[in-house]
Amino acid sequence: MNVAILGYGNIGSAVARLFAKNHESIRARSMQTELELKYLLDVRDYPGDEYEQLIIHDFDTILNDESVGIVVETIGGLKYAYPYVLACLKAGKSVVTSNKELVAEKGVELLRAAQEKNVNFLFEASVGGGIPIIRPITQCLAANELDEIAGILNGTTNFILTCMIQDGMRFDDALALAQQNGYAEPDPTADVDGHDACRKICILASLCFGKNVSPALVHTEGIRGITPADVAYAASWGGVIKLLGRAKRTASEDTREQVNVLVGPALVGSRSQLAGVNDVFNAILVRGDAIGDVLFYGRGAGQLPTASAVMADVIDCAKHLHAKRNFGWEESRDGYVADYLDAETALYVRSLAENPKDALAAAEQSFGSLQILSREGAPQGEIAFVTPTGTERMLRAKLDALPLKQESVIRVTDY
Amino acid sequence: MNVAILGYGNIGSAVARLFAKNHESIRARSMQTELELKYLLDVRDYPGDEYEQLIIHDFDTILNDESVGIVVETIGGLKYAYPYVLACLKAGKSVVTSNKELVAEKGVELLRAAQEKNVNFLFEASVGGGIPIIRPITQCLAANELDEIAGILNGTTNFILTCMIQDGMRFDDALALAQQNGYAEPDPTADVDGHDACRKICILASLCFGKNVSPALVHTEGIRGITPADVAYAASWGGVIKLLGRAKRTASEDTREQVNVLVGPALVGSRSQLAGVNDVFNAILVRGDAIGDVLFYGRGAGQLPTASAVMADVIDCAKHLHAKRNFGWEESRDGYVADYLDAETALYVRSLAENPKDALAAAEQSFGSLQILSREGAPQGEIAFVTPTGTERMLRAKLDALPLKQESVIRVTDY
Repeated sequence: MNVAILGYGNIGSAVARLFAKNHESIRARSMQTELELKYLLDVRDYPGDEYEQLIIHDFDTILNDESVGIVVETIGGLKYAYPYVLACLKAGKSVVTSNKELVAEKGVELLRAAQEKNVNFLFEASVGGGIPIIRPITQCLAANELDEIAGILNGTTNFILTCMIQDGMRFDDALALAQQNGYAEPDPTADVDGHDACRKICILASLCFGKNVSPALVHTEGIRGITPADVAYAASWGGVIKLLGRAKRTASEDTREQVNVLVGPALVGSRSQLAGVNDVFNAILVRGDAIGDVLFYGRGAGQLPTASAVMADVIDCAKHLHAKRNFGWEESRDGYVADYLDAETALYVRSLAENPKDALAAAEQSFGSLQILSREGAPQGEIAFVTPTGTERMLRAKLDALPLKQESVIRVTDY
Repeated sequence: MNVAILGYGNIGSAVARLFAKNHESIRARSMQTELELKYLLDVRDYPGDEYEQLIIHDFDTILNDESVGIVVETIGGLKYAYPYVLACLKAGKSVVTSNKELVAEKGVELLRAAQEKNVNFLFEASVGGGIPIIRPITQCLAANELDEIAGILNGTTNFILTCMIQDGMRFDDALALAQQNGYAEPDPTADVDGHDACRKICILASLCFGKNVSPALVHTEGIRGITPADVAYAASWGGVIKLLGRAKRTASEDTREQVNVLVGPALVGSRSQLAGVNDVFNAILVRGDAIGDVLFYGRGAGQLPTASAVMADVIDCAKHLHAKRNFGWEESRDGYVADYLDAETALYVRSLAENPKDALAAAEQSFGSLQILSREGAPQGEIAFVTPTGTERMLRAKLDALPLKQESVIRVTDY
């Protein structure tokens, strides 16, 4: 059985090296299926590289080579990855990918293509890096109804927030430090604005609940607006601010199943397992009817963890070459993803008021009761509080009617 | 495909109910294999029970019924479970068990019997209750060398320690509360003396490193000796006391592979993910060369979580009826489990001295340097400190030579 890798970059080259390093044990674990790395597709040449002779530039060589049964896609993005992966699946080759954008945007179509040809489309590395999460979830699903998932899904933003929480840094400085350490890209948009976390929660929600959740439908907020003042108020409340991807199954009034899916900063109580997840680590919490809360924790990114997850999928492919893996999801109907404003939450609010005493009195009257927060060094006129629970739409309408200027509004969770 | 359950107690009855509740989804997930519950073996009758008509008392009925392809063992202990499970495997039936004693004591023999008949012997529920851990570890293993595992593996002792840490309770009172809550047995020996955790770390060590680790060879300490004074000193050191099962691969001087396996209370720094695992929750940390640290967290016991893990195994059996699952372990040679006194560690010591000043001076001279700890309300003559790292044998020899009475000695970890 030959294997081809599409994209000889950061992840692809680590997969190639893991292949060589663990050749014997991989053979043992793939039930004696001999796996040979045959092609490395890349636009560049790699003169002097140990795998120089495997580098090719023409995708069709791989597509038309019937000896290639497993294709690893580590190109990233959609432009090449999507048509290449689709073509491979249609040609009856199993595909393993680490590409979260591909799975989040095109998963439902690619899974169907795999099913039609009775081959595998596996993507353990697309969420949580080296943390085994996709397969454990399918295992949990076997005997559980899963109703809720919440995760710290992006290591870059978690590093930034950790710097802000533990060292009192401002966002800009923490971002600069993350870039210095190689944890953040020169253009950090995909991370700090929540798009990366959004793709991952879409994959998890699609998998857990069985119906496709498209990133375009998910309300997504990043962490650019978080300030040291918010971090201090969160501490006085008894918790920390984390960027969470969250998905919860619900039912709308006409009993049609819906999901609430959301990405954004959230207040997490310090006794939560998610509160202690620091630096570039990721964690995913799964809530099931029989198992209760289960949490998976580890390095969510990085060359080696990701490559090890890819390799585990390759071995799984080799073991179940023409046995359909029993997971995937279907298209969802319009309206399946609920409007986030209809979900129940409590809100943390930091605001400025010309007359703080009057504003607080008005807020207390409007909300019934409030949890007032305080911090050292608060400027004149600053007010911070946590509202009672209600639909976000109702809470925001009440806030907008108050005589105060909202500086920061963050959802409060009970994970 | 018919299924029989041996032992209609706490776990067995929950498995039966899960069977009925999720009948449709289980069929879908077991690739359309129709699973029917046919027998419930128990010594008792259950008049009026919803499964009354499935109750039988004669094991041979199950053994000789060729329509029974999967047997669930939830009797517990070895007396009946061991011969029944062995007979089932030898008769070509797959077996799923939640019985950690059976797997820890007889796993190597039962896995071999399963292999010979090309059937499955699965035991996800034997460690960590509902937390998926056995299969994720085998998945991690596919592309990683795993070198170390550490876990909070017993919910009862973790509940007791949490009461001592958070509420300042004494051991006896915390144990009584655990018994009131149904978390501890009337005879709590298996939990509080570490035997339950020992069986689980033996299963994990055998699985991760591929060679059998027998509970009889593992140095095991419980938590009866932990006092509020130790809890207070641990806090002043910057951590908490947890009962850990630990296993680490090492090499002896003659380069033959060895493992350090140990169960006992340990000081864990408060930034460790293990430190925040409270109440009856369990967590298992796995350290691999490519993935780094991965942690699995959830309810380690309880009827429903355990039954859901059993059910997931049953479904896996149905999907891979005559495909060998690719995990297990071999017999180990004598000397494979290293003497715990030869492992490197640091030690926390609480002691009494007639002349504290002289005793501390002698200790500092003997160890080179010490981290001296203090607490409020310490009685006259009490000394507490953390030693530098060294072999436990060397550290204890030095301690024994000091002019002080050792009240408590606890290992310090770096997880």
